[in-house]
Amino acid sequence: MLDYKLLEAFASVIQEGGFERAARALHITQSAVSQRIRQLEEAMGQVLLTRTKPPTPTEAGRRMLKHCLQVRRLEEDLRDNLGPGGGEGYVSLAIGVNADSLALWFLDAVRPFLLAERVVLDLRTLDQEETLHLLRDGEVAGCISAEAQTVQGCRAEHLGSMDYRLAASPGFAARWFPDGLSLAAVSQAPMLVFNRSDTLHVKLCRQALGASPEEFTAFYLPSTERFPWAIAEGLACGMLPEQQSTPLLADGSIVDLAPGHVLRVNLYWHAWNINSELLGKLGRCLAAGARELLGP
Amino acid sequence: MLDYKLLEAFASVIQEGGFERAARALHITQSAVSQRIRQLEEAMGQVLLTRTKPPTPTEAGRRMLKHCLQVRRLEEDLRDNLGPGGGEGYVSLAIGVNADSLALWFLDAVRPFLLAERVVLDLRTLDQEETLHLLRDGEVAGCISAEAQTVQGCRAEHLGSMDYRLAASPGFAARWFPDGLSLAAVSQAPMLVFNRSDTLHVKLCRQALGASPEEFTAFYLPSTERFPWAIAEGLACGMLPEQQSTPLLADGSIVDLAPGHVLRVNLYWHAWNINSELLGKLGRCLAAGARELLGP
Repeated sequence: MLDYKLLEAFASVIQEGGFERAARALHITQSAVSQRIRQLEEAMGQVLLTRTKPPTPTEAGRRMLKHCLQVRRLEEDLRDNLGPGGGEGYVSLAIGVNADSLALWFLDAVRPFLLAERVVLDLRTLDQEETLHLLRDGEVAGCISAEAQTVQGCRAEHLGSMDYRLAASPGFAARWFPDGLSLAAVSQAPMLVFNRSDTLHVKLCRQALGASPEEFTAFYLPSTERFPWAIAEGLACGMLPEQQSTPLLADGSIVDLAPGHVLRVNLYWHAWNINSELLGKLGRCLAAGARELLGP
Repeated sequence: MLDYKLLEAFASVIQEGGFERAARALHITQSAVSQRIRQLEEAMGQVLLTRTKPPTPTEAGRRMLKHCLQVRRLEEDLRDNLGPGGGEGYVSLAIGVNADSLALWFLDAVRPFLLAERVVLDLRTLDQEETLHLLRDGEVAGCISAEAQTVQGCRAEHLGSMDYRLAASPGFAARWFPDGLSLAAVSQAPMLVFNRSDTLHVKLCRQALGASPEEFTAFYLPSTERFPWAIAEGLACGMLPEQQSTPLLADGSIVDLAPGHVLRVNLYWHAWNINSELLGKLGRCLAAGARELLGP
């Protein structure tokens, strides 16, 4: 079998984001970490990571990392099954979640699981298009993604959907969209965008106008929770999920700039296709919670 | 003078996070982007970026990027000063903000500036220890940091402070800390941690216990807004800023695990020391808002 002491050093460098941090986490010296990784690379006959800051796994390294995390997960289940005497410690489960889901419903959905199990989460946020990379790279055991296509060695399950509308304050709408939504107006008006990977506004324009402007006046705001505030204050228009838009539309603090056009983002739970009890329980709890908290 | 068409291509690759995205943003082909960067590198006699995914600037590239952004800022001021006919467009200001500040007070502080000026923000979140790297690398024109030390070519101003307490639900405190805070108990109890760079809990332990455990049972939750929820639900203990802890302490939904021990994080505004009217206005608005919203 493989020498898992070496694999652990390798996985730790990737997960902690550096040799020094890995050394601290493993309580060994930095040169011991380097040596273990060199040994592992020699044993495998492959370079496993690039020595950049932070270090990134090579293609072979990614496969190695994924294997290492899968073994860890199985070990944790084993320890769990050995009964209360088998392990006092909590188990850590690495999960990728898009920022909107984390802010708006994910934790509420998995609350029963978290209260029942001796588990802590290691949550990573990325855009819904990007969480799948974390799974493919083996950095997380499961993730929520807008992608339906399964990753090799994983299974996917539809959770439900989030419906986004293009919203603005009434004053903002009157100033920038006096004649309604148009390509010219939407490219001029300040537009809230979560970050460089966020393309929800582009997709809504394509749906409502048949095309999207090449450029927007982007106001980058990487905070789901502050989107409704910035829109209601009239700083910009932006895409709001139903969970946030419904109360504000009802009390008149925002208006829908593209009535009748809703961008539906389907969300899927992707997880390693291994026989892990804990991962299975999390998936079932998540699916039940999502049914309650999300649209169909 | 330098050929700014080349610099723009280079800056765009870094800011957009890739050659393809830069090409899209500049409306040129990807090979034109590559060619411009090669030309610039030949002209400078230096490699400016590593061809990784995403591309990262070399030391020389970082200096080039910073210069490019400073010139842009000056140009925007110029356009602003040429009067309303000089430029219809909004100006984009790149700012680094730590996640807690973004969630809890930053936008409220700069609201008057945003409502008065034709400006959109390009906000980047990082931990308070890391925002300064963005400024040093020239990726932002200003940032909020816990570091008092100024960066070369920049000035710093004290904004105020945020006071953090180690909080837990009453049930969690009774279960994990029946005999009060101790090194053994605090290393066993699930501890909310924002991400790998978050060390507030380590610092509070050093202050309250004289030392910190080597390891925590970390529950990584990269969402400022969900911290109070997770603590009140009894999923973990964690560090809460006063803005979040005060109402929950008052209504008894959380307790202070280390009474009398407050971790004070001083926050500073760092900005390029250039004669930019817009950056100056933002700084003054931010300082005034911070005086109102933050502790001394």
